[in-house]
Amino acid sequence: MPKRVDHEHRRGQIAAAVRRIAADRGLEGVSLNEVAAEAGISKGFVQHYFASRDEMLRYAATTLRGGLEERIAAGLPSGKPGVRDLLVALLPLDEAARDDALVANAFLMRALKDPEIAGHFRTGHGAVRDAVAAMLAAARDDGDLVPTVDPATEAALLLALVSGLGDAVLLGYQSSEEAIGLIDLHLSRITARER
Amino acid sequence: MPKRVDHEHRRGQIAAAVRRIAADRGLEGVSLNEVAAEAGISKGFVQHYFASRDEMLRYAATTLRGGLEERIAAGLPSGKPGVRDLLVALLPLDEAARDDALVANAFLMRALKDPEIAGHFRTGHGAVRDAVAAMLAAARDDGDLVPTVDPATEAALLLALVSGLGDAVLLGYQSSEEAIGLIDLHLSRITARER
Repeated sequence: MPKRVDHEHRRGQIAAAVRRIAADRGLEGVSLNEVAAEAGISKGFVQHYFASRDEMLRYAATTLRGGLEERIAAGLPSGKPGVRDLLVALLPLDEAARDDALVANAFLMRALKDPEIAGHFRTGHGAVRDAVAAMLAAARDDGDLVPTVDPATEAALLLALVSGLGDAVLLGYQSSEEAIGLIDLHLSRITARER
Repeated sequence: MPKRVDHEHRRGQIAAAVRRIAADRGLEGVSLNEVAAEAGISKGFVQHYFASRDEMLRYAATTLRGGLEERIAAGLPSGKPGVRDLLVALLPLDEAARDDALVANAFLMRALKDPEIAGHFRTGHGAVRDAVAAMLAAARDDGDLVPTVDPATEAALLLALVSGLGDAVLLGYQSSEEAIGLIDLHLSRITARER
């Protein structure tokens, strides 16, 4: 079905244009005209693929953090080193992660108004939290975790911490090194000191 | 100077209208027309007080979290109970705190583009962090804190955690009770178990 493939490809290009604009200036900047200009196509062409701005935004929301989910699906180091790797990967330390964080922030207000986008956010968050919980459970089985730590609870705490640290780095409250230092401080408290 | 007072009063009313719109639908919804309608005045009147939308947004940014800063200035319980009170007060648990969190989120992308707004965010964040650090130092002096905890470092960690928990509550990742439970879990790790 080459036509179908082309259709999805084109929608993906438009979603990428939405993400670039959102990372640069928030959803404020996302109009059909601006998206058409960013994607290098006509406004009519955008409208051919998306009946409305809302439909376009909903589709773009389903393409957020695709890279992260692929990376999790592809597998991370198990146990304690995997947890630290994943948490640090969630911080906006390189340009791709920074853009991801900016786009997620740009969509946050929209998610609060749009149950479909909110549902997608929750699904994505749940997948990452489950991955962190599984890695923490493995760390516990390895004897690397303080025995009283509950993997699911701790995963929720760690993701909230990393989300807040991400905003703190974006806003210049903290340097990248300080943010990583705080993750390590927290991990040092929940990991066993000796085997 | 009644004229000056009236001027500031009117600017305050306009800033309040900006905040209400931003809490409801993000900065996307903040146009001179919408603000005029929300404030119940004419567009020309808004323009009399603010030469541009940017100037209006900058002024509105200086009015964010005024309630919180007043509360800190007025004094909170010292030491360990004060820390918990302040952290819980930062969560979007009631309508006023929820609106504060929504407005801060709406302004986040703008802060990344506008050094003046970013500076205001940083000043506000620094004031809250210093207040938390001072309360932690008092808790340490009371023998309520694990002696190895550094108040300034811990204040930064706690504020990142609460910021992430606030977004998690807004987005429905966590209930209010779960978010408070995670704050208490973290505080239990840094507070001394016995005197």
